Amino acid sequence: MTRKLNVAVVGATGAVGQEMIRQLEDRQFPVERLLPLASARSAGSYITFHGEQILVEEATPDRFEGIDIALFSAGGKVSKLLAPEAVKRGAVVIDNTSAFRMEEGVPLVVPEVNREAIFTHKGIIANPNCSTIQMTVALKPIRDRYGLKRVIVSTYQAVSGAGASAMQETLRQTRAIIEGDSFEPAILPVGSLPVKHQIAFNAIPQIDVFEENGYTYEEMKMVRETKKIFADPAIEVSATCVRIPVLTGHSESVYVETNEEIDHLEEVFELLSSAPGVVVVDDPSQQKYPMAVDAVGKREVFVGRIRRDLDRKNGIHMWIVSDNLLKGAAWNSVQIAEHLIQSE
Amino acid sequence: MTRKLNVAVVGATGAVGQEMIRQLEDRQFPVERLLPLASARSAGSYITFHGEQILVEEATPDRFEGIDIALFSAGGKVSKLLAPEAVKRGAVVIDNTSAFRMEEGVPLVVPEVNREAIFTHKGIIANPNCSTIQMTVALKPIRDRYGLKRVIVSTYQAVSGAGASAMQETLRQTRAIIEGDSFEPAILPVGSLPVKHQIAFNAIPQIDVFEENGYTYEEMKMVRETKKIFADPAIEVSATCVRIPVLTGHSESVYVETNEEIDHLEEVFELLSSAPGVVVVDDPSQQKYPMAVDAVGKREVFVGRIRRDLDRKNGIHMWIVSDNLLKGAAWNSVQIAEHLIQSE
Repeated sequence: MTRKLNVAVVGATGAVGQEMIRQLEDRQFPVERLLPLASARSAGSYITFHGEQILVEEATPDRFEGIDIALFSAGGKVSKLLAPEAVKRGAVVIDNTSAFRMEEGVPLVVPEVNREAIFTHKGIIANPNCSTIQMTVALKPIRDRYGLKRVIVSTYQAVSGAGASAMQETLRQTRAIIEGDSFEPAILPVGSLPVKHQIAFNAIPQIDVFEENGYTYEEMKMVRETKKIFADPAIEVSATCVRIPVLTGHSESVYVETNEEIDHLEEVFELLSSAPGVVVVDDPSQQKYPMAVDAVGKREVFVGRIRRDLDRKNGIHMWIVSDNLLKGAAWNSVQIAEHLIQSE
Repeated sequence: MTRKLNVAVVGATGAVGQEMIRQLEDRQFPVERLLPLASARSAGSYITFHGEQILVEEATPDRFEGIDIALFSAGGKVSKLLAPEAVKRGAVVIDNTSAFRMEEGVPLVVPEVNREAIFTHKGIIANPNCSTIQMTVALKPIRDRYGLKRVIVSTYQAVSGAGASAMQETLRQTRAIIEGDSFEPAILPVGSLPVKHQIAFNAIPQIDVFEENGYTYEEMKMVRETKKIFADPAIEVSATCVRIPVLTGHSESVYVETNEEIDHLEEVFELLSSAPGVVVVDDPSQQKYPMAVDAVGKREVFVGRIRRDLDRKNGIHMWIVSDNLLKGAAWNSVQIAEHLIQSE
C-alpha cells in the first residue's frame, strides 16, 4: 500500500519513544502525520521528525481520533488506560509494555519468528520484552531444524532498559566513585520498590519485582513470552536476569537443548548466518564475538561464542547481543508496523 | 603446632600478593619471617607487615633457603620455574596459578570441599581458579545431600581477576568515557593477545585464551578443576566466563542438576546456611541477594536467588558471589596454609 498513515507515539520523550521516532524516520515509514504524545508533565516539549519541530501533546483518549497506528511505550498503566481508547477510535496499537502481552487474543510478535501472528490482531499487537526478543530471533532457526527442548539463559542487561533516568543514575554513581564522592542509590533495581542498590561497578541480580516462586517478573517474562511467541508451552525456559553497568546493549549467555542431536556444529553456524535479523560474529582466533558496545545503534541480533555442550550432543551454548532500545523495543515495534502495512 | 614459620610470598606487589600478606596479618598466621618476593622490576619496593617495613627482594631460587611455606601468585611461568626450586629447598608451595593445578599428584584444594587432599601433597598444593573456588564451596553441601549431576554456570567476573593493571585500565576508560575523551583499550581481555577490547560499560565474553573446542581456558578451568576438586569426573560442567566492569567481586549464575530429586527447597536453604564458608543472603521481599560490592573484603561465599528450576524437580538456580582476590585467591591460599600447619 502507498497510503500515508497518521502515527501516534505514546511516551515520545522516553528512551524508547525517541528511538521509535528515529526508526520511523530512518526507515522512511510512510507517515502522513506524526503525533508525539506524553504525560502532562512532558507535554509541551518538542521532538524533531524529518527536520520538523513537532509539539509533544498530552496523551488523552480523544488524541487518537484519526490515528491509524499508535506505538505505545509509556509504561503498563498508560497502555492499560489508553490503548483500548485508541483501538475504539480505529487505531491499531503496537504496545511495547507488558500490559497485554500474555492476554489471549493479543498477538505477541517478533517478525523474524512469528510474523503471521500479526494478522490475527483485534486492535492490539504486543511487542515482547527486550531480553525475549533477541533470544527468540536466535533460537528460531535452531528450533526449526532440531526442535527446541530447553533453554537456560543468564542475562547481562543494560541500564537503559530501565529508562533514561537509570542511565543518568549510572553515570552519576560512576562519576561519584571515580571522584571519591559519596552517593545515594535512587533508581535501580526497581523505581517503585523501596530498596535501591548501587549499579556502578556492580551487578544486581534483580530486574523488576519478585514473584511468589522466587523468580523476578523479568525472568518470568522470558519464560512465558518465549512459550507464547513459539506457540509451544512445552519449551522449558529458565532465566536469571541481571543488571550490569552497561548503558545500552543486552548480552545473554544461552544454553540450548534441542530435541534432535546436532551432528555438525557447522550447520548451526550456517542456520544462524542465513537467519533473518541475525549476524554471526564468531571467530575465536581473531577474538571476535558480539559485545554490547558494538551492538549499539544496530537493528540486528548478534550471535557468537557458538559451541557444543561438552557432554550432550543436543546441547549448544551461545552469546546473544542486541541493542535493547532498538531490536528489543523501538525497532521491533516499527518492524511490526512495517509488516502490518505491507499486508494491506 | 606453635612453631613460627618462615613464609615467602612470590608476587608480593601484585593485587593477590598484597592480599596474601594482609590475610597472613589479619589471621595472625604464625610468621617468624615474612619474605616478599617479586620480579626484578618490582624488587626494591617495600611492603608493610604488622607495622614493619619489609624490602621486596627479587625472586631467585636461593631465596627459598630456610623457607617453610611459599605462597606463589606471580603468573604460571614464574611458578613453573621457581616452585620446584622452593620445594627442593624444603618449602611447601601453595600455588595460586594454573601451572600445576591439573598435574597428577598435586592436590587442588578448597578447604571447605576437600581439606583432606592437602595432606597428600608432595611439595606443591594448588589453589584453584577464583571462579571455581566460590562455586565449589556452594555446590559441596548440595552434592553431599543430593549428588551432583550437572552444572551450567555463567560468570560475571571482576577486572581485578586480571590484575591491578586491569583495574587501572577500567578506571581510565571509564573516566575517559564520562569526560568525553577518546581512549585506546590496552589490557583486556588478555594481556598477551593482540586484540584489546573496551571493558568500561561493556561485557566481554572472553577471559584467557581460546582452546580448540571453542571454550576459553578460563571456562575449561571451571570444567576440569570442578571435577578434580570433587574427585568426580562424571560431573557435567559447562561454563561461559564473562568480564564485566566490576572492580572486585565475581558473581555467578549457576544452574545445578542433582542426582536425587529435591523434595523441599527449604532443605537446600538449611544445607547452605549451615555449610562452612557460606553465607546465605536471600530474601526477595527485602530485595536481599548477594552483590559484588557487598562481598568485597569478606572471606565468605555469598549465595542467594536460590530457587527451583521451573520444570525439573532435580534442578535449582543460584547466584553465587565472592571476593575474587580473597576466597578466590589470597584467602583460600592462606586458609590452605592454616590447615597445613594445624595438622602438624
